[in-house]
Amino acid sequence: MAERSRRIPEATVARLPVYLRALVDESDAKASTISSERLAELAGVNAAKVRKDLSYLGSYGTRGVGYDVEYLVFQMSRELGLTHDWPVVIVGAGNLGQALANYGGFRDRGFPIAALFDADAAKVGDVVHGVEVRSLDDLPALVADLGHVIGVIATPAHAAQEVADRLAAAGVTSVLNFAPAVISVPEGVSLRKVDLAVELQILSFYQQRREGGPDADDGAVPPGRPAPAVG
Amino acid sequence: MAERSRRIPEATVARLPVYLRALVDESDAKASTISSERLAELAGVNAAKVRKDLSYLGSYGTRGVGYDVEYLVFQMSRELGLTHDWPVVIVGAGNLGQALANYGGFRDRGFPIAALFDADAAKVGDVVHGVEVRSLDDLPALVADLGHVIGVIATPAHAAQEVADRLAAAGVTSVLNFAPAVISVPEGVSLRKVDLAVELQILSFYQQRREGGPDADDGAVPPGRPAPAVG
Repeated sequence: MAERSRRIPEATVARLPVYLRALVDESDAKASTISSERLAELAGVNAAKVRKDLSYLGSYGTRGVGYDVEYLVFQMSRELGLTHDWPVVIVGAGNLGQALANYGGFRDRGFPIAALFDADAAKVGDVVHGVEVRSLDDLPALVADLGHVIGVIATPAHAAQEVADRLAAAGVTSVLNFAPAVISVPEGVSLRKVDLAVELQILSFYQQRREGGPDADDGAVPPGRPAPAVG
Repeated sequence: MAERSRRIPEATVARLPVYLRALVDESDAKASTISSERLAELAGVNAAKVRKDLSYLGSYGTRGVGYDVEYLVFQMSRELGLTHDWPVVIVGAGNLGQALANYGGFRDRGFPIAALFDADAAKVGDVVHGVEVRSLDDLPALVADLGHVIGVIATPAHAAQEVADRLAAAGVTSVLNFAPAVISVPEGVSLRKVDLAVELQILSFYQQRREGGPDADDGAVPPGRPAPAVG
């Protein structure tokens, strides 16, 4: 049970799903082995980082051959807890919640939508992509029933903190927040945030570069700014 | 115009929006300066990396004081091309497309939704959150009219490649793909992908760890696997 106590750095954990996606694509393309260089290219990191990350999983590959694709897929799936399904409850049955309930990428990868909740009594009882919209009052009973679930917040920004509080109170210990708001959760609850605007900002960076650099008048640092030193 | 030729590593570019978000939050909380340690904590990286990343922007902070929050916000906004709006065209007026059209986080951060397209003639003419759904046939004329836009693919997986081809043909050079499909774009087009399942996988990793480790029978590496070597 060496794995259970081994500490995997957070940044490595965040890269595992990216590696896994690339490996599944390679596997679909019938590749049986993969070099760290190729995996690095697909994942957008350098090869040394790939080797280091995989070493945390106890995988070292074979010189001149690389890594066994199927085995890495198995190993990562196991590390990521993907060898069984994790039911997801979505709070917020608006467009985003409905879109998430219908997003093929969740169900296909072991995250079936167990329930969709909404605070609006008028929406309760609606059926969205085969999932009935339920009242938030039913949340604690459902969580008690399902055991471990992942709670997804898909409400407007102003409702996000209250929903996070209700999820935590119901015993949900993994929360994914899509609302464009900063929220907090009690200790012992994992919180991740998806900021849909970040990718647009990265694209605008490259678009602007193609157009000739930052659009300030002269691209120079304004006067009167701190001299170089360590912050 | 030193900025215009300076090369900022891709990984740094990807962190800039994360820093920016943290800095805007700090600014909202009335902080006037921030240490690299604090910014590192907020962004989930280490302080040395923050200092290195900011040095690419020509920002070095002041020893014992840190960085000027407002100035960093200005500088990053400029680098990211956020000092003017970038119109966004969304292809796919289903739930996800509608959710994105209505997602407050886009408009608020300089990415107004300029148009929503759908291949389904029955949807054309509908008005979604104030945006009329248009036929994909109108795409080239609209792009020619708006100049640089960011194209967002919010179709089902099977339609994503065709839409990417049509965006590129219309002259769109920045594409963000939400469809759970791997697509390719011509050289000169920036492509980013949002994989909504990645965050769930990271949460399942931590959830599983709390429950006692990988759920394989004994957590050990199966027999018959390659011995340590470099892949």
